[in-house]
Amino acid sequence: MADQLTVAVLGLGAMGAPIAQNLVAAGFAVAVWNRSPERAREIAGARPALTPADACADADIAITMLADDRAVEQVVFGGMGMLSSLRRGACHVGMSTISVALSRRLVAAHKAAGQGYVSAPVFGRPEAAKAKQLWIVVGGGDAAVECASPVFDAVGQGTFRMGDAPQASLAKLLGNFMIASTIEMLGETLATAEKAGMEPGRVLDMLTGTLFGAPVVKRYGQLIADTAFEPAGFRLSLGLKDVGLVLEAGEELRAPLPLAGLVRDRLLTALARDRAHLDWSGLASVIREEAGLPAVRGR
Amino acid sequence: MADQLTVAVLGLGAMGAPIAQNLVAAGFAVAVWNRSPERAREIAGARPALTPADACADADIAITMLADDRAVEQVVFGGMGMLSSLRRGACHVGMSTISVALSRRLVAAHKAAGQGYVSAPVFGRPEAAKAKQLWIVVGGGDAAVECASPVFDAVGQGTFRMGDAPQASLAKLLGNFMIASTIEMLGETLATAEKAGMEPGRVLDMLTGTLFGAPVVKRYGQLIADTAFEPAGFRLSLGLKDVGLVLEAGEELRAPLPLAGLVRDRLLTALARDRAHLDWSGLASVIREEAGLPAVRGR
Amino acid sequence: MADQLTVAVLGLGAMGAPIAQNLVAAGFAVAVWNRSPERAREIAGARPALTPADACADADIAITMLADDRAVEQVVFGGMGMLSSLRRGACHVGMSTISVALSRRLVAAHKAAGQGYVSAPVFGRPEAAKAKQLWIVVGGGDAAVECASPVFDAVGQGTFRMGDAPQASLAKLLGNFMIASTIEMLGETLATAEKAGMEPGRVLDMLTGTLFGAPVVKRYGQLIADTAFEPAGFRLSLGLKDVGLVLEAGEELRAPLPLAGLVRDRLLTALARDRAHLDWSGLASVIREEAGLPAVRGR
Amino acid sequence: MADQLTVAVLGLGAMGAPIAQNLVAAGFAVAVWNRSPERAREIAGARPALTPADACADADIAITMLADDRAVEQVVFGGMGMLSSLRRGACHVGMSTISVALSRRLVAAHKAAGQGYVSAPVFGRPEAAKAKQLWIVVGGGDAAVECASPVFDAVGQGTFRMGDAPQASLAKLLGNFMIASTIEMLGETLATAEKAGMEPGRVLDMLTGTLFGAPVVKRYGQLIADTAFEPAGFRLSLGLKDVGLVLEAGEELRAPLPLAGLVRDRLLTALARDRAHLDWSGLASVIREEAGLPAVRGR
Repeated sequence: MADQLTVAVLGLGAMGAPIAQNLVAAGFAVAVWNRSPERAREIAGARPALTPADACADADIAITMLADDRAVEQVVFGGMGMLSSLRRGACHVGMSTISVALSRRLVAAHKAAGQGYVSAPVFGRPEAAKAKQLWIVVGGGDAAVECASPVFDAVGQGTFRMGDAPQASLAKLLGNFMIASTIEMLGETLATAEKAGMEPGRVLDMLTGTLFGAPVVKRYGQLIADTAFEPAGFRLSLGLKDVGLVLEAGEELRAPLPLAGLVRDRLLTALARDRAHLDWSGLASVIREEAGLPAVRGR
Repeated sequence: MADQLTVAVLGLGAMGAPIAQNLVAAGFAVAVWNRSPERAREIAGARPALTPADACADADIAITMLADDRAVEQVVFGGMGMLSSLRRGACHVGMSTISVALSRRLVAAHKAAGQGYVSAPVFGRPEAAKAKQLWIVVGGGDAAVECASPVFDAVGQGTFRMGDAPQASLAKLLGNFMIASTIEMLGETLATAEKAGMEPGRVLDMLTGTLFGAPVVKRYGQLIADTAFEPAGFRLSLGLKDVGLVLEAGEELRAPLPLAGLVRDRLLTALARDRAHLDWSGLASVIREEAGLPAVRGR
Repeated sequence: MADQLTVAVLGLGAMGAPIAQNLVAAGFAVAVWNRSPERAREIAGARPALTPADACADADIAITMLADDRAVEQVVFGGMGMLSSLRRGACHVGMSTISVALSRRLVAAHKAAGQGYVSAPVFGRPEAAKAKQLWIVVGGGDAAVECASPVFDAVGQGTFRMGDAPQASLAKLLGNFMIASTIEMLGETLATAEKAGMEPGRVLDMLTGTLFGAPVVKRYGQLIADTAFEPAGFRLSLGLKDVGLVLEAGEELRAPLPLAGLVRDRLLTALARDRAHLDWSGLASVIREEAGLPAVRGR
Repeated sequence: MADQLTVAVLGLGAMGAPIAQNLVAAGFAVAVWNRSPERAREIAGARPALTPADACADADIAITMLADDRAVEQVVFGGMGMLSSLRRGACHVGMSTISVALSRRLVAAHKAAGQGYVSAPVFGRPEAAKAKQLWIVVGGGDAAVECASPVFDAVGQGTFRMGDAPQASLAKLLGNFMIASTIEMLGETLATAEKAGMEPGRVLDMLTGTLFGAPVVKRYGQLIADTAFEPAGFRLSLGLKDVGLVLEAGEELRAPLPLAGLVRDRLLTALARDRAHLDWSGLASVIREEAGLPAVRGR
């Protein structure tokens, strides 16, 4: 059945490229587009397109996996964009982490154009994308979700259905807020332990060996214990963007998130110290400095 | 070998009683003392003592499992207390969660009395204590830890050796800080999700099914999603005490812990609203109210 | 000289109306416009205009005194707006409290249109506007400021020259942040004093009688001590808007403002409890409730 | 009348010495004691005493002006201390800034000894003490306050009667909290302004020239604008002590003070960076660094 469907993938960064490749491998007819066009030619078995409109022209499903709201807006609403090229009845599957407000706007715009919109942001780093191990947070109307569902098996290990598209966008943002909060709590814990003369890695072992054995605690805990903030798995500046979107959503909902505010201030300080390129676990470098420790151990 | 050793257990609350019972079952000669003496008579196979000194008189190992610093101070330093009754060469195993400062004081006082002191606070609720599933955070000099080690197998599933006694006390306090922080982050996340019209339990499933599958997230997440803040597994007022001890330790170490400060303020508000008796997951009730939600769902 | 100049006033709310009236009294030829046109007919001696363009058509100086960024954008950039109607060489005097970003955009747009832009937000409540007692924070190029200066004497008691237009916008926003912070600190102080059984008004007298004798402490302190949060002098929802603009500016500048974040969360909670209509001193109602006191005394 | 009264002054630091000198000048018989005895010999016209008991032996009024709770406890409760030497009917006037808890304990102890206790902490720096320009916050029973009142005219410019002794202690602590909060808000404001390219001193002039013309804003604003954090008028480490006492009082009263928590964390970071010796306006150095500015301008 998969070979009957044509899928466009717009955005071929560290996440989009392996997703496109996995779709080819699963037997879909795949058209790909990227802002810098050379990346489009690297997806073996896919048709490189010169514009989003070209990629979407004969697509049943059009996936976006782009950096931020602005990039999605340009690809969808811009000239030669998706909105004017995708056929009626086809659906847009937004896999980027975007604002709740844009998610809402996309629902309305696609509806007006006779197209479907499914919010489908993912949990997982590039390695997970390659290994088809992404978790997909799915939101949208039943028809649109049904339209989109053939691609989910080809790129992820499972889906969580979370209501409508803006709700799924929010759910994903809240997940990122949870990661940032975990970095904050580990940062405070391990800096305090280090100041008391304990080995941070040993304290982390105690935590993960007892009550805190989640993947996110193990992974980020190790980065923080080792102060291994480079290279970035997820850049600090992108983390600030997402925490900002959480706060924006909270403001609209009238739900204060002081922990998000705390994390935001840490990230801002990291940027003020020219650390935008670090992994977002690097917010712990600011925590360390507030405790009088060097940003990175042993310096 | 165990039958050659005599162990005193001081403090027979929800944690101390099952620990004493497990020691009896493991073949130790056990003397027990509790401030309200009827509880001492309920430990089958143990010798009820009328004073801490009576319990410690012929003990090789004396365990304290008491509510707070003050209770430990009274039992150790008070008249008819442990310090003056425990024989030279015996050791005190402090399983309560106490301040770093008291831990330090106990090391010095027992050393001066020719006794050993081991800090051995535990992770685990009363059910874990019954099932010998406690995790024990162990700190102290090698001789004292060796003296204490026979009892650990009888009451827990494993130990984490964390340096000296004050360091182990701090490590345990930091673990409690991590739990409180987890409650805060889940509280903010689920309140925001609820305001956006999502089912908190469903968002929790997404989180624990992806990156956050730690026991502490599952347990507290469920309590918060259900706003099931009673009965208390660990009372909110005790949580405030421990977070206060973390902040105190941070102040001494000159390590700011703003997340601990945030949690402390939440707990204070809960107390100001007469919720000292709730489980400490009940700090989420304050988060809910700040978002304009009722403290408990459906009220 | 003043009678040689024609001034347009766009926005006739509680601040704009007395400003327009004072300009008439000072001898300027005044054209006025307001979204709801009946207010334009109430400014005696002024020419009511039907559109911003109509008001600006023969103006030497065009003043905006509007609610927020969006209102200014519509009046300036909209069809029948100021940008296309103000003559070359005339200047726009923006007296609203707007974002730094919009201030920057206005400079560029007016420059491209051969017009000047002066940022001139004010400190002072409606009574101060009536009494010509406003303080005006002025920013812009020298030529534009010179163009605008004739009106300042007619509406205020003095000016502070603060650099370029975006800087003056920021300076004004920071002033509002200072007011909000003062409300926060007084709120915490007086709630704590009340819980200790002291009379808040008496504590306030002590503070203003010693080190804190500033107008803003006296005024807001009295409102908080009396919990007199209605009627609003400056609405809580507008306060949230301005604190949001401060945080936005801080994010762009990479300057964290945690106190602004704290205030923002308070205001959000007030809104979540349906208090958007209160004076922004009403954020103290949230502080009171967090201390277990009723939002308003005696209830 | 004053010449009929004998006054003991315990503690001859930067505040106590000028107070003692002013009491001599006002005609009281003055006995003085200081931990380092050479300072006692420097108060012309006063009788140097070797112990607190010696100083208090024939005193009608005994004033303490000491560094912290511990110093007061030693002088009052220690061997050769005030409690056992002051005659029945005499009164202790505590002018130090101490904890609410110690204030409460002093009331009880002096009552039991047939003595009076008046809490009388002061606002004012050493220059104000020399010039008899202190503001005195007075709390205690009527009889004790009457006993103490003759000295107030000799050392200050006015008194604020604030209820009982613990209430007066709290009122003074809250005043210090207000100062610390003012430093925080000015620090955030001026750092943000500096990052936007404005001259901090100019922004300060705007603020103090409009709504914020209080002595405390002018004084601390200038120190922060000039980053003139040395020499210390009031040491940062003492500021941390007082903010800690405010938080402690708030905890007992169940009144959260998040702004005090924020300030406390700043001060802790300053200490972690070895700045205990700075004036407490130096907490702004930490704010500056979080915004990516150097701790002190021009470095």
